[in-house]
Amino acid sequence: MRKPKEKKAKKEQFQLKTPKGSKDWADKDMVIREAIFQSLSSMFKRHGGVTIDTPVFELREILAGKYGEDSKLIYNLEDQGGELTSLRYDLTVPFARFVAMNNIQAIKRYHIAKVYRRDQPAMTKGRMREFYQCDFDVAGTYDKMVPDAEILCILVEGLTNLGIQDFKIKLNHRKVLDGIFEVCGVKEEDVRKVSSAVDKMDKLPWAAVKKEMVVDKNQPEEVADKIGEYVKLKGTVRETIAELKKDELILANASAAAGLEEMEILAEYLEAFEISPFVSFDLSLARGLDYYTGLIYEAVTEASSAPTNADDLKKKAKKSKDGEVEDASDFVGVGSIAAGGRYDGLVGMFAGANGKKASIPCVGISFGVERIFSLIKMRQQQADKIRPTATQVYVMAFGDGFLKERMSITKKLWAAGIEAEYLYKVKANPRKQFESAEKAGCPVAVILGKDEQANGQVKVKLLGPEFTDTEDGEVIVSISDVVETVKTKLAQANVGGMNEITRLLKGL
Amino acid sequence: MRKPKEKKAKKEQFQLKTPKGSKDWADKDMVIREAIFQSLSSMFKRHGGVTIDTPVFELREILAGKYGEDSKLIYNLEDQGGELTSLRYDLTVPFARFVAMNNIQAIKRYHIAKVYRRDQPAMTKGRMREFYQCDFDVAGTYDKMVPDAEILCILVEGLTNLGIQDFKIKLNHRKVLDGIFEVCGVKEEDVRKVSSAVDKMDKLPWAAVKKEMVVDKNQPEEVADKIGEYVKLKGTVRETIAELKKDELILANASAAAGLEEMEILAEYLEAFEISPFVSFDLSLARGLDYYTGLIYEAVTEASSAPTNADDLKKKAKKSKDGEVEDASDFVGVGSIAAGGRYDGLVGMFAGANGKKASIPCVGISFGVERIFSLIKMRQQQADKIRPTATQVYVMAFGDGFLKERMSITKKLWAAGIEAEYLYKVKANPRKQFESAEKAGCPVAVILGKDEQANGQVKVKLLGPEFTDTEDGEVIVSISDVVETVKTKLAQANVGGMNEITRLLKGL
Repeated sequence: MRKPKEKKAKKEQFQLKTPKGSKDWADKDMVIREAIFQSLSSMFKRHGGVTIDTPVFELREILAGKYGEDSKLIYNLEDQGGELTSLRYDLTVPFARFVAMNNIQAIKRYHIAKVYRRDQPAMTKGRMREFYQCDFDVAGTYDKMVPDAEILCILVEGLTNLGIQDFKIKLNHRKVLDGIFEVCGVKEEDVRKVSSAVDKMDKLPWAAVKKEMVVDKNQPEEVADKIGEYVKLKGTVRETIAELKKDELILANASAAAGLEEMEILAEYLEAFEISPFVSFDLSLARGLDYYTGLIYEAVTEASSAPTNADDLKKKAKKSKDGEVEDASDFVGVGSIAAGGRYDGLVGMFAGANGKKASIPCVGISFGVERIFSLIKMRQQQADKIRPTATQVYVMAFGDGFLKERMSITKKLWAAGIEAEYLYKVKANPRKQFESAEKAGCPVAVILGKDEQANGQVKVKLLGPEFTDTEDGEVIVSISDVVETVKTKLAQANVGGMNEITRLLKGL
Repeated sequence: MRKPKEKKAKKEQFQLKTPKGSKDWADKDMVIREAIFQSLSSMFKRHGGVTIDTPVFELREILAGKYGEDSKLIYNLEDQGGELTSLRYDLTVPFARFVAMNNIQAIKRYHIAKVYRRDQPAMTKGRMREFYQCDFDVAGTYDKMVPDAEILCILVEGLTNLGIQDFKIKLNHRKVLDGIFEVCGVKEEDVRKVSSAVDKMDKLPWAAVKKEMVVDKNQPEEVADKIGEYVKLKGTVRETIAELKKDELILANASAAAGLEEMEILAEYLEAFEISPFVSFDLSLARGLDYYTGLIYEAVTEASSAPTNADDLKKKAKKSKDGEVEDASDFVGVGSIAAGGRYDGLVGMFAGANGKKASIPCVGISFGVERIFSLIKMRQQQADKIRPTATQVYVMAFGDGFLKERMSITKKLWAAGIEAEYLYKVKANPRKQFESAEKAGCPVAVILGKDEQANGQVKVKLLGPEFTDTEDGEVIVSISDVVETVKTKLAQANVGGMNEITRLLKGL
């Protein structure tokens, strides 16, 4: 190969790695991740979802003003002449842009794709700069809380289908929260920034959140204290509603009252779907993003929270030259494993840009695949048994090489839809062939021998420890019957088979 | 929803669109594209492939010096503090980086993912700036031409499985081509640039290619003329070999002779796989990329070439403000629909950077999904019949709203893995429900009526024109039997069913 000479000197100078916060997926991890996608996408289809695919970058203006304080985490593409673009930060804003641009009145769509955030990575906890989201969103004007309830049902189904049972869904309602802020005396223009302080309550103690409100966000201390009383409230949906209804100030607030009415309707639907036991109405949940307007939710597990000594661990963390923490895995939790909410105004922001006026109400959920993956990966025993290839048959030759004959027989198997491999050697050593078959985990071998070959025949053999060195499960057939015989042997080998990936996902 | 006031003025100023050369995929197109991925990935698995996923961006140094004249088309990410990165240009270089980084000795991997090129787009021809590649590559040291032959077999299988029969594979060998250049008197340092001129022979007449060699690339006219004689040669593999072997100069050239020996081995294997009729040994094929070292190939169809009056059309094309052509669809062809080659030095370039010395030989194929899609989309009649949702059952209420009861029954169907929807309304109008069921293309309805409900029963009904206004295919069952009854009805509805997407892919 011609390597331009000036390149040679350079070769040793750079590190062979993926960019910070990103990684390669391969081998068993990839099989597990694909199985997670498969489980989620078939569920999305069961709920009437259609899928779309949007570009990985959007015009920079599309993303502007949608993410509040997190906007600084957006990746920009270099200006190389032409439009200014940025990598997508989530799948929600591109979806809203799609709905507005195509003047869609109603759609249930799912989208499984990568998003990009220039955040502090914590690789082993599944907190990455490039990561997958699996989103399901319902756009359209419907009766109150009906799609919202189905989205929560999807959240429960999605996680339980993946063998995750010990999670809790925290629910809150932006209208209730905004009403509380108003009752406590927060000015309208301060609501979003106070809300983003409350959003940190799962990571910080109340004292730190209060300090942020008072010092950084200029709220009077008594306002912060009043907020503190409210946001401690949590319980079942019906309990929390009852508690809030005891409060005259809340009942008299239009926003809070509207929110509570919706929560009461929701409570009924959650019962119809039999998912109330998973749900907690938790007033400390605020969600950072600007665009939510109604119900908001997050699914969390034990692994979601940071260790109690996180602060100490953070101080000891390895820093890179620019003072950034290299990997925050030691002192952060997995975080929420799925989250979402209602955003009735987002499509309207784009519809305006298109000269169309209609706003389309939306509600959606986003599953964090990397975080779910890290939970499933802990089921080590099953994960160990997964094999990365799908190969079912190894086509071998004994004595002579018979390469062209192996090619020809393998081709017949491929044409019949059977996964098959053979050794890429003219002369093939029997031991090497058996080793390769074993490594791939093939249950069946087709063996070409000199005698059989002369008679237009081959041997079909079951592999696996129980058949080694025996003639059990071995049969000699005419080459014209090889496909049928292999199918019979494969059925024999896979008897009773729930496969390993299914076991893993079910947590068996 | 709170919209910050300063955003309002901005709202009307930008166009609601995707960035140039990119598009959204939705609806039937998305269903067709997913089916193409499904067909290709199950074939890749049949051939023993495992899949990997690499980040969408790579360190900029990884991509440097790999793409020859095309390097200018790479998208860079903005320097926002931290590493310099670029969007991947293909899946081959990231694969080679992965193999080197993990010190892998042998792997068959497939990868279906998007790549990025700042090229002139031709949207309706499937030439995009963001587009999918479906790659299969074999890395490892094997007997000569054995994996190469299987890659060509995969190329034929991949296209024929998608109902594409009228394609031709152009083959050439870099060693033969380099030998020819040497014989014609091209200096070693000029070989790659002369090769990239030859690569344009499918788009330009010989006169233009010769001009590029002589004027732009400083080759003596007699050298260009000699090259012109050789690169006109094409025919079956055996014919072209025979033709070249008549030439003493070629036979005496070490590089050309080594290439021809490999082509003779390949000819045998192509016969074993019964794919020779698809293949033409065409000396005008050069492939632009720097990294190829052996066999190279491209699959082309009628639609691959540009119209004969391309030059006139180009002059008339709509230009944007910056003088760039907005969309080149009118005057370019679809181009090659799949292409690849052997690249034995690429992994070694990275292995060096890692302090490891080993080079791993590789050979691979890349299917251009958007281009294949545009061919399949021409089978309009079948494409029209595809429905975007998978919904099988519509759960309705007559007379009363029964929303919670509809939710509860639909939940049972979901739990049984059945795709089901219902109207998101408290009170549901029967006509609206039938319309929604018809729009989704559901074959079966579950109907809740007042009388049946009182008895703990529901109606299960086959939909479709043959059952409208009749009581055929209708049965009243206990709610506890609804799942079993629905399964029976669905089996009845789908009798004899090869589904529409399968028909479309088979071109039936």
